[in-house]
Amino acid sequence: MKFSTQLVPSKVHTSETLQNERKKANFNLSEMDLFINGKEKIEGREKALKIIRAEPEIFEQSDTYYMSRTEKLEKGYKQEKRLIELLSLSNILVNPLEKFDLTRGMFIPTLEQQCNDEQKEAFLKPALDYRIIGCYAQTELGHGSNIRGLETTATFIEETDEFEVDSPTLTSTKWWIGSLGISATHALVMAQLYVKGKHIGLYPIIVQVRSMKDHKPLPGVNVGDIGPKMGYNSIDNGFLNFNKVRVPRFNLLQKYMHVSRTGEVTHMKNVDPRVTYGTMVLIRANIAKNMGYQLAKGVTIAVRYTSVRRQFGEPNQPETPVLDYPIVQYRVIPLLAKTYAMLGMAHEFMGQYELTRDLIAKGDFSKLKEMHAVSCGLKRWTSTTGVYGVDTCRHVCGGHGFSLFSGLNDFFATIYPNIIYEGDNFVLAKQTVSYLVKSARALVTGSSVELNDTTSTIKKYINKPAVLTEAELFSWGGKSASQIASSDKLLLDLLGFKFVAMNHNLGVKIARKGQSWDDSSIECQGIATAHSEYIVCLYFSRHINKLPQSSSLRPILNNLFTVTALSFLTSNSAELYSFNKAASMTRDQIIGLETELVKYIKLVRDQAVPLVDALNVPDEKLNSSLGRYDGNVYEDYVKRALQEPVNRDGSGDVIRARFYDKYIGPVLHGPNGTSAKL
Amino acid sequence: MKFSTQLVPSKVHTSETLQNERKKANFNLSEMDLFINGKEKIEGREKALKIIRAEPEIFEQSDTYYMSRTEKLEKGYKQEKRLIELLSLSNILVNPLEKFDLTRGMFIPTLEQQCNDEQKEAFLKPALDYRIIGCYAQTELGHGSNIRGLETTATFIEETDEFEVDSPTLTSTKWWIGSLGISATHALVMAQLYVKGKHIGLYPIIVQVRSMKDHKPLPGVNVGDIGPKMGYNSIDNGFLNFNKVRVPRFNLLQKYMHVSRTGEVTHMKNVDPRVTYGTMVLIRANIAKNMGYQLAKGVTIAVRYTSVRRQFGEPNQPETPVLDYPIVQYRVIPLLAKTYAMLGMAHEFMGQYELTRDLIAKGDFSKLKEMHAVSCGLKRWTSTTGVYGVDTCRHVCGGHGFSLFSGLNDFFATIYPNIIYEGDNFVLAKQTVSYLVKSARALVTGSSVELNDTTSTIKKYINKPAVLTEAELFSWGGKSASQIASSDKLLLDLLGFKFVAMNHNLGVKIARKGQSWDDSSIECQGIATAHSEYIVCLYFSRHINKLPQSSSLRPILNNLFTVTALSFLTSNSAELYSFNKAASMTRDQIIGLETELVKYIKLVRDQAVPLVDALNVPDEKLNSSLGRYDGNVYEDYVKRALQEPVNRDGSGDVIRARFYDKYIGPVLHGPNGTSAKL
Repeated sequence: MKFSTQLVPSKVHTSETLQNERKKANFNLSEMDLFINGKEKIEGREKALKIIRAEPEIFEQSDTYYMSRTEKLEKGYKQEKRLIELLSLSNILVNPLEKFDLTRGMFIPTLEQQCNDEQKEAFLKPALDYRIIGCYAQTELGHGSNIRGLETTATFIEETDEFEVDSPTLTSTKWWIGSLGISATHALVMAQLYVKGKHIGLYPIIVQVRSMKDHKPLPGVNVGDIGPKMGYNSIDNGFLNFNKVRVPRFNLLQKYMHVSRTGEVTHMKNVDPRVTYGTMVLIRANIAKNMGYQLAKGVTIAVRYTSVRRQFGEPNQPETPVLDYPIVQYRVIPLLAKTYAMLGMAHEFMGQYELTRDLIAKGDFSKLKEMHAVSCGLKRWTSTTGVYGVDTCRHVCGGHGFSLFSGLNDFFATIYPNIIYEGDNFVLAKQTVSYLVKSARALVTGSSVELNDTTSTIKKYINKPAVLTEAELFSWGGKSASQIASSDKLLLDLLGFKFVAMNHNLGVKIARKGQSWDDSSIECQGIATAHSEYIVCLYFSRHINKLPQSSSLRPILNNLFTVTALSFLTSNSAELYSFNKAASMTRDQIIGLETELVKYIKLVRDQAVPLVDALNVPDEKLNSSLGRYDGNVYEDYVKRALQEPVNRDGSGDVIRARFYDKYIGPVLHGPNGTSAKL
Repeated sequence: MKFSTQLVPSKVHTSETLQNERKKANFNLSEMDLFINGKEKIEGREKALKIIRAEPEIFEQSDTYYMSRTEKLEKGYKQEKRLIELLSLSNILVNPLEKFDLTRGMFIPTLEQQCNDEQKEAFLKPALDYRIIGCYAQTELGHGSNIRGLETTATFIEETDEFEVDSPTLTSTKWWIGSLGISATHALVMAQLYVKGKHIGLYPIIVQVRSMKDHKPLPGVNVGDIGPKMGYNSIDNGFLNFNKVRVPRFNLLQKYMHVSRTGEVTHMKNVDPRVTYGTMVLIRANIAKNMGYQLAKGVTIAVRYTSVRRQFGEPNQPETPVLDYPIVQYRVIPLLAKTYAMLGMAHEFMGQYELTRDLIAKGDFSKLKEMHAVSCGLKRWTSTTGVYGVDTCRHVCGGHGFSLFSGLNDFFATIYPNIIYEGDNFVLAKQTVSYLVKSARALVTGSSVELNDTTSTIKKYINKPAVLTEAELFSWGGKSASQIASSDKLLLDLLGFKFVAMNHNLGVKIARKGQSWDDSSIECQGIATAHSEYIVCLYFSRHINKLPQSSSLRPILNNLFTVTALSFLTSNSAELYSFNKAASMTRDQIIGLETELVKYIKLVRDQAVPLVDALNVPDEKLNSSLGRYDGNVYEDYVKRALQEPVNRDGSGDVIRARFYDKYIGPVLHGPNGTSAKL
């Protein structure tokens, strides 16, 4: 099928509009790319692009929009196989496509951490060579958050020197296990260990699930794919149910604990359980950073498309780009600012993580608690902001946002579970707030507290003994909204005090009124958010302050900082109204901050296209008609529609002919031809 | 593939838990069904179920989760064809499956409205008999909201007595047109009409697009499917591009205007353009009602699943149902309450619509403006609440919410565009608020204003001449939060004053400071929401008050009302903090309302399962493992997973063998067999 060649473009071409936006750039885009993405990310991007562009028939993703799940799975395998070949050829980045892969992401790291040397030889080495494909089998049909409730058992059988792995109930079936549905040969199974009738605890044990000869499930193993999902449909998440399967005792990972031939259980000495917390901090920090990249993708599409989409306007003028309407700016621009804040913050947070890791290696755990609390908060805040930010990006694209070709639908569906896994966001809030409440309590009662960004801010407002005057503490007193908005310090002071005040209110209820943590769970949400917002702004401002004062990047980055901070302060201003006594804000100040936000949004809107260009998300990754770098939105959209299977010449003709012969024709003409209905 | 028969259910079976919840019911479920759904809905449901259950192989939807788009299209056609056969057999409800169908929903109603008698014979009659299949072609690639900007032209050619229909630009291509992609033979095209070089305006004209003989596109017509979408993938939304296609002059719909043989244009006299507003009010009212049914589906799944899903708890006890956790209740129960409020409100609103329609038939347009404003507001509020409510339902289901078998994903995707079509929600706010601001202005200046629920409330607080004391106006003064929460009147007073106060603030900016409507668009959002929340509560309370005082339904309905109202008041309490002077609320009152909300939530939680049972959404419609009436959640989930195409015996074996031979095997063993990698 072809479109009429009579078509001429409309008055101002979308690509021209985008070029005009680019001319307004008042900063250097490569410098910004380096500042906000960092060298490592840029190198990774270039390597990935080289692979994709060298073999687009394998790695290009635009055809996935037309695929059934089976076809998506097959495409995923094709890419995986080719990547593994390329890996052994050139030792490129392990994860150039950021493809979800639990063999590399969970199975291998756990083996590295928990195998003894003999086990490394037996399991880790072949896994690294892809002679076995492993998966990490933890979640069960009945248990996700509460891993202590997992029901799969591994029972020591002394007679044969084996463990018997069993799924005693329907709900004990392992579920959601990545790479297990079709691919895996081996599973690292988290099981309740029983030795001589005694429950030892939850431990990882290796179970081979499919034959190395013909890949068929081994006896007693029920394994398969859990079926279609909202997203990730090229991945074979699987289920696994054991009917008393025996494995050698050797298969229990034994670096930290050991079961002897006679069933003696020994735990390795000098292992601080807090070490594993370090891994969790890293996983959450990586999610936080990744959500910045994901939101970058969403805002790139939304900003480019709303810049070129025109609707309404003055008579005899080209219609107005929708990004010029305040209601569109108000939704998109704060997300652009938060993308920068998230990515900027991540550099600082990763620096702190590395410091913590190095200290831990020296046996110093002093920074770990704060890192844990902050990483839970940031995982929670970035994933909520990222996922619902992408949803807002879709909504501002209007009707065309609903087409898969917008690039925002499969994408939204795939990032969605970030709000659930590695700690559901509503559950995680407590992890953060429990640290805040305990720290505040300790500071009030004079117990020793490790000082850091969080505890120093709490301590400042406890102010006992008094070291600061009220004017120093509540620096916003008597200042106009515009003075507040133009001062990073005042904005940070307000954000800091906000979380401290909210946390104080909860602390009182818990300490004095005995309110339970379950009953505190609703208040925990707001406090965790306020704390994360403070940390995000604090870390983002630190990252900005690494730049020389003369940097051309500073003015626009400061505006991005201000939009982010004001957006946090105004999003639920009830908190500002309820500040007590000396800290209180006036109605004029609070409402004034909203006016300031709109003002700063307009400043960022002017640079919006260059700002998303500097994020440098390649078209291959956007996979979007609406967000294309060249702005040829409608041409690309039509081109993709013509590739819809039912439209295609040949194969599409066959499908349409079938629909007509079997359904449409009989309706139009009656079952026996034209005469029947007339 | 089969599951091990060794499986035994876990300690408290999910179905048993659900039965125990049902025993707690303190009201009559059938009475509630009748009260909240109404007789017509119940009859429609029963008829639809009869059809589905008689021919499940055609109408049952559970297999759609495994389907490619082409397969979904084919299933849709099969259902459509069978439905049309059944329609002619038994005169059942036209739309028993609530299937989206623009032939019946838009093409035929427009013909009914705008054809003259001759045209009805030529177009409407064959359309009603399915001898032609029509579509309503309005939206273009470049224009959705701004229909005046549509670019398709229809030019009168006097020589041949024809119109030439043309798509002059790429962006003028019709896009998103339902039933056009594959099915339609005719299109009702909205085009810019030109007669003798003069632009007449936007008018509907019938163009045949496909041959009646072989269904091929006619010359000059480019038509096809626009490709895959986030949802609605069984529907063939299409594109349409004309290369100077000629149609007879007769094809211009001529009831309200006429182009003569010589190109004289005449408009019918005595046609009030406001009549068409009535149709828009009905469409929006129907969306508002439908969103209640959709949210009913979401909360049914969420309430049943969170009642039986257990996680954590006391030692040696069955784990705690997650709905017993405050943070889960806080997210689900207000949605359950809002479902009831939405459905209850819709009965009252439909009554008002019918009254308005009858008045219009008598030439009385006095109620139309308010109906328009309220219907825009309710379409906006119900669709935002419904769509994001369903998203919350998905999130509370945790990881399993991400499986298609939760029933919440295809479903969410399909209801999503309700926030965009028939007026984007962010654009619609202005329609409502413009009425509010103008009414307030008229009331202040003493112009004549039609009094109704909205304007009476505004007038009350203008209170000039003073008829009410401050104590009467600001009835919440001096009342405790618990007194407020237990009084429907006080809650309605607060909700009413909230929208009036917010509207007043904007009115001042517009009237005194000359703020433009574009710059008011952000404030319009909150005001439109506050107004709709007031109307929803007002109408819901009226529907409740139709019940006899002695009705067993009243106590729980009152609690649902209170949860709804408190949830509105506390969701952005900044508005309460900023009430001025005599109206002001204390911090204790405001924070107290949050405590009250949690208290009332617990009362509703107790009846949550009976309440969703009374909504009576059949399992066939839920299409969900998690939300099944019988509570056999995990059994059904596993059963569905085993039906995943790659798991199936035979066909699945073939797929897995191909994946293994082509991709997995070569990775494991190297391209030349086992030896290569060892």
